[in-house]
Amino acid sequence: MAPPPFLTSPEQYKELFDSVDTFLLDCDGVIYHGPVVVEGVKTVLQLMRDAGKKIIFVTNNATKSRKMYKTTFDKLGIEAYEEEIFGSAYASAVYMSRILNFPKDKRVYVLGEKGLEDELDAVGIQRCGGTDPEDRVFIPSMDFSHFPADPTIGAVLCGFDSGINYKKLGKAYSYLRDDPNVHFLLTNQDRVFPTSGTTYPGSGSLSAPLVFALQGKREPTVIGKPNKHMMDAIIAEHHFDPKRALMVGDNLLTDIAFGLGSDVRTLLVMGGVTHKDQVYGPEPSDIRPTFVVESLGDFAVLAKN
Amino acid sequence: MAPPPFLTSPEQYKELFDSVDTFLLDCDGVIYHGPVVVEGVKTVLQLMRDAGKKIIFVTNNATKSRKMYKTTFDKLGIEAYEEEIFGSAYASAVYMSRILNFPKDKRVYVLGEKGLEDELDAVGIQRCGGTDPEDRVFIPSMDFSHFPADPTIGAVLCGFDSGINYKKLGKAYSYLRDDPNVHFLLTNQDRVFPTSGTTYPGSGSLSAPLVFALQGKREPTVIGKPNKHMMDAIIAEHHFDPKRALMVGDNLLTDIAFGLGSDVRTLLVMGGVTHKDQVYGPEPSDIRPTFVVESLGDFAVLAKN
Repeated sequence: MAPPPFLTSPEQYKELFDSVDTFLLDCDGVIYHGPVVVEGVKTVLQLMRDAGKKIIFVTNNATKSRKMYKTTFDKLGIEAYEEEIFGSAYASAVYMSRILNFPKDKRVYVLGEKGLEDELDAVGIQRCGGTDPEDRVFIPSMDFSHFPADPTIGAVLCGFDSGINYKKLGKAYSYLRDDPNVHFLLTNQDRVFPTSGTTYPGSGSLSAPLVFALQGKREPTVIGKPNKHMMDAIIAEHHFDPKRALMVGDNLLTDIAFGLGSDVRTLLVMGGVTHKDQVYGPEPSDIRPTFVVESLGDFAVLAKN
Repeated sequence: MAPPPFLTSPEQYKELFDSVDTFLLDCDGVIYHGPVVVEGVKTVLQLMRDAGKKIIFVTNNATKSRKMYKTTFDKLGIEAYEEEIFGSAYASAVYMSRILNFPKDKRVYVLGEKGLEDELDAVGIQRCGGTDPEDRVFIPSMDFSHFPADPTIGAVLCGFDSGINYKKLGKAYSYLRDDPNVHFLLTNQDRVFPTSGTTYPGSGSLSAPLVFALQGKREPTVIGKPNKHMMDAIIAEHHFDPKRALMVGDNLLTDIAFGLGSDVRTLLVMGGVTHKDQVYGPEPSDIRPTFVVESLGDFAVLAKN
């Protein structure tokens, strides 16, 4: 297979831009790196809006609600609207509510942050765990009275949880071990999250104890990129034509695989977590983007023509 | 392949007993179930001692030192000696000291309990983390100042840690991410630990975040059963003939695989974590014990002859 084209000329940018009605944009690594907006990207977003393109920000970060993301965009001076933002926290809440029809009288036990709780609240799903200080405590001895059965629990949902500990893992594990009807959901399976030029253990790593402890017995449903649940949830809400869409991201395993899995074309940007060698060899990844570009900001050149 | 013989008669017990000089005995599930000694086992241990057999208690539990195990045996009224006890905490300390020749001026960052710390102290290895209350605290926000570089760290060692949290995982991950010379060790990879008729997430599950976050970059060295490091450490200390040894255990994945990996015959006991179906079908495990018996206590019948 020929390697994907690396776009460098205004003509190439224009041809691709014109062929797209809906831009699915990963955030960290594409729009900004932590607190710094990628050069040219504000201009490119304005170009998209001026041309009537639909913009959807698609992120696996499960610690923020749409509202929190909106605040982040505001602080960075980026025009964005809550209804354009699709994070794995919101996607998980939508999945539980619309796809699972999660019962109103059951509760979901959360390993996660306030952003995830807020999105569950927004769709009317009862929850416990999460940021509750009662569960964010160290259990000094293996006192199993901390893990009583609870028939009100209908699901365990794991995202990034800075309060991960044995009490929470023990509770979540016990609910899943005891009742096959308790749903096992992960917001996403990102190994690490990148920040300030380095990485730290991500959501996928924090749910790994449950996945590993239950292996062979329970398989989790993973919502975020690259899983199709996320795309289904987006399409259910935004009704776009996948053939006229483009997924833009910096991560082969999440963003690019996500597009490929739904026959949406993909644009890989450099400058994030992927090195050119992973695309152009000597041993390229099996996950091949449709197009590659140095930066989404490079499309800003189209504003001058 | 024929299924392994299920021993039921005194003649079968005697033939096997006489062919063994060294009994390697798993503890939980073989000798006792939590606080209850398995019926007949005290008599069988006495038979072994009277016949001059060597006894080695081989356990993956990394929360206890040999001294703590001795106390456990004392409380249960079981004759045992510290030098007969080989836990994965002690095996890890021995591995670091003898095999790695871990430098005296370096420290190991511990995810584990006091028993593991005690065994490291016993072989003169400097340590930090572990039960230190400074690290067993919840970090309320993602403040990465909690994970500074530390050139004194020469290894990360993970066992069962009831104080697992993001601060400890973040520190351990950062040390391993930044320096390929920092050793990455796990006491064992047990998914769960069985207790009081149920299971909870085990050492292997608690180290899963680090293993997952570092996948493709760092592979851990796993010390405990079924890994050969554990057998090498035991043989280095006890110098027995593997051909005249028998590994007795209730777990196919740890105990039985452990024996098979070192050409030591194995005896699987029922009543622990393994069901007969896993040995005798309809879809038996690939891990096949040499012999199967209902209980190690059944050998007590030999005392009457």
